[in-house]
Amino acid sequence: MTDSPVLALACDLIARPSVTPEDAGCQQMMAERLAQLGFTIEPMVFHDTTNLWARRGTTGPLFCFAGHTDVVPPGPLDKWDSPPFEPQVRDGLLYGRGAADMKGSLAAMLVAVERFVTDHPDHQGSIAFLITSDEEGPFINGTPKVVETLEARNEKITWCLVGEPSSTAQVGDVVKNGRRGSIMGDLLVKGIQGHVAYPHLGRNPIHQAAPALAELTSTRWDEGNAFFPPTSFQIPNINGGTGASNVIPGELKVQFNFRFSTELTDETIKARVHEILDRHGLEYELTWTLSGHPFLTAQGALLDATVGAIEEAAGIRTELSTSGGTSDGRFIAPTGAQVLELGPCNATIHKVNECVRVADLDSLAQMYQGILRRLLVA
Amino acid sequence: MTDSPVLALACDLIARPSVTPEDAGCQQMMAERLAQLGFTIEPMVFHDTTNLWARRGTTGPLFCFAGHTDVVPPGPLDKWDSPPFEPQVRDGLLYGRGAADMKGSLAAMLVAVERFVTDHPDHQGSIAFLITSDEEGPFINGTPKVVETLEARNEKITWCLVGEPSSTAQVGDVVKNGRRGSIMGDLLVKGIQGHVAYPHLGRNPIHQAAPALAELTSTRWDEGNAFFPPTSFQIPNINGGTGASNVIPGELKVQFNFRFSTELTDETIKARVHEILDRHGLEYELTWTLSGHPFLTAQGALLDATVGAIEEAAGIRTELSTSGGTSDGRFIAPTGAQVLELGPCNATIHKVNECVRVADLDSLAQMYQGILRRLLVA
Repeated sequence: MTDSPVLALACDLIARPSVTPEDAGCQQMMAERLAQLGFTIEPMVFHDTTNLWARRGTTGPLFCFAGHTDVVPPGPLDKWDSPPFEPQVRDGLLYGRGAADMKGSLAAMLVAVERFVTDHPDHQGSIAFLITSDEEGPFINGTPKVVETLEARNEKITWCLVGEPSSTAQVGDVVKNGRRGSIMGDLLVKGIQGHVAYPHLGRNPIHQAAPALAELTSTRWDEGNAFFPPTSFQIPNINGGTGASNVIPGELKVQFNFRFSTELTDETIKARVHEILDRHGLEYELTWTLSGHPFLTAQGALLDATVGAIEEAAGIRTELSTSGGTSDGRFIAPTGAQVLELGPCNATIHKVNECVRVADLDSLAQMYQGILRRLLVA
Repeated sequence: MTDSPVLALACDLIARPSVTPEDAGCQQMMAERLAQLGFTIEPMVFHDTTNLWARRGTTGPLFCFAGHTDVVPPGPLDKWDSPPFEPQVRDGLLYGRGAADMKGSLAAMLVAVERFVTDHPDHQGSIAFLITSDEEGPFINGTPKVVETLEARNEKITWCLVGEPSSTAQVGDVVKNGRRGSIMGDLLVKGIQGHVAYPHLGRNPIHQAAPALAELTSTRWDEGNAFFPPTSFQIPNINGGTGASNVIPGELKVQFNFRFSTELTDETIKARVHEILDRHGLEYELTWTLSGHPFLTAQGALLDATVGAIEEAAGIRTELSTSGGTSDGRFIAPTGAQVLELGPCNATIHKVNECVRVADLDSLAQMYQGILRRLLVA
């Protein structure tokens, strides 16, 4: 189909309809090629999720490519100009579900490693792949479980490059060097139900909560820092009342969400929220769900190597960013690893007619190879 | 069944299962007895609701008894010690749905008028009955329509005595001489939907509304007056959010209710609420529903006659009150009538085993008769 081995592999991966948590044989295909390069192959299956841990070398430092073979559902098939699981190149663009998020990256990683190992069979340290089929799903049996397994045997990743589509206009123009943390609170404010004609016999939880909510929404939680915008607080859901217009409700439910910078921890946030609720005299229950701690790779060898490799391959000075949603990097960073995300442009991810520039995939493979060379060759 | 004509009539009325908007022949039975006294009978049927306007005399002043033949549903029949529509006297108490609210009052009114007309066939002014079968329902086709009809022909009520169960421990211990007004607001606060990870692209209506709601709930609307407690504001219902924890909602719905004193009008309330919402910069829609203006009969011949008649019949000094829910008095008072409510004890109304003291019904008939004598005999 093409003379680009990156494009060829990307097509082979896209042709496998691996909607979360399906892997559809993608990891097996990658594992076979990695095994030929001398990688030790270790499938890790947890419940419905297929994961691959593959490592070449036994010494440190350990460089790890992280990514996922699963894709989001294609959505309405009739909106696609070509079938989502039949890769097609038109006008220099490769179309198909997962082209940008992130089978293109997986292909670039694998080809980069093949080239690098051919050039440097005796590289320093180790190279690994941490691949899951659960990144787009509930992220329970994917990367978190693999990391848990590695931690249990004290296998430490030094540098981790996640292949998430980080770029905006041109591959390499943006590298994510961190992500905000995310924590959710489910608040139940308790009152006393009653009749609106006899307010002294009831206690309206909406009334009691109103000034506390006003304070929560107007609080400046931090100022952010050089890498993070200020922490944001949002109330996505609020519900109180029986539906009847003459009943003082007995309960109010409020759900809120923090996207927080590295200036705060989940413990700090919890303490500050409880202080506000307590000070307003609320009777309440509050359940917290932590989706991820914030992480930041502000400096270090991985960052230097990545910036240098991008400049060499594309002639551009990359921009560091911590914006956007979460990624599996949040599960790897807490082990002490330096974590960056570098992948193709993200304009079409999760949409119909998802696509990636073919030339960008080749460029991305060059960048990945350059990073390996900078880190693992004396 | 008894030698009390009030009890006998109350039993006849209770035996007719007149759940709103059914009248079940109650008004016809009353009309026949009133016709014998020289009343002009004028049934007024509006859609599903049967009303009775009956008047004796053509000159002013016009004294009117107001009440309703409909009752609320009996609820679980197995919880009643005797069937709700089979009146039964046990230990001096008359049991049955409507015994207290307000078929007992209707019986007392009618017997009082029979006795009064027998004693004073040439009384001054006129006596009327305004009876509806829609007081416990949506109050659309009942008293409001009758009042509208009377207003259209300029037929003015001077004094109106509503038979609602006003008493607490003993018949006559409390007379309602007014009621609070009631107005409801349905507020829709508009924001811009978005993703919680990108708060700068959305505008959360819950956040925008929170300080305005805090102000509304903490506002002292008035201080009340000698007859009314301070105006109360309650939010019975609040709803915002898609249910998803990562979506900034586009709308917030808030329903609120004012029970207001005669120190305020609905127009004052509306203006003050809009001022608060506008000052907080909300984009919103607000729909108002006025359930009733407040009314007050602070002094006058009706009040003097009622206080005097209660003292004469029961030897007690009645207490004036404006507390509790609404009544049909709110539709009659705006015509300029003096309006009071006097009826039996309300402890069991709308409950299973509703009952009224038989002696109270006789006492109530005496009070009603005494009021007529004080007002219509020179």
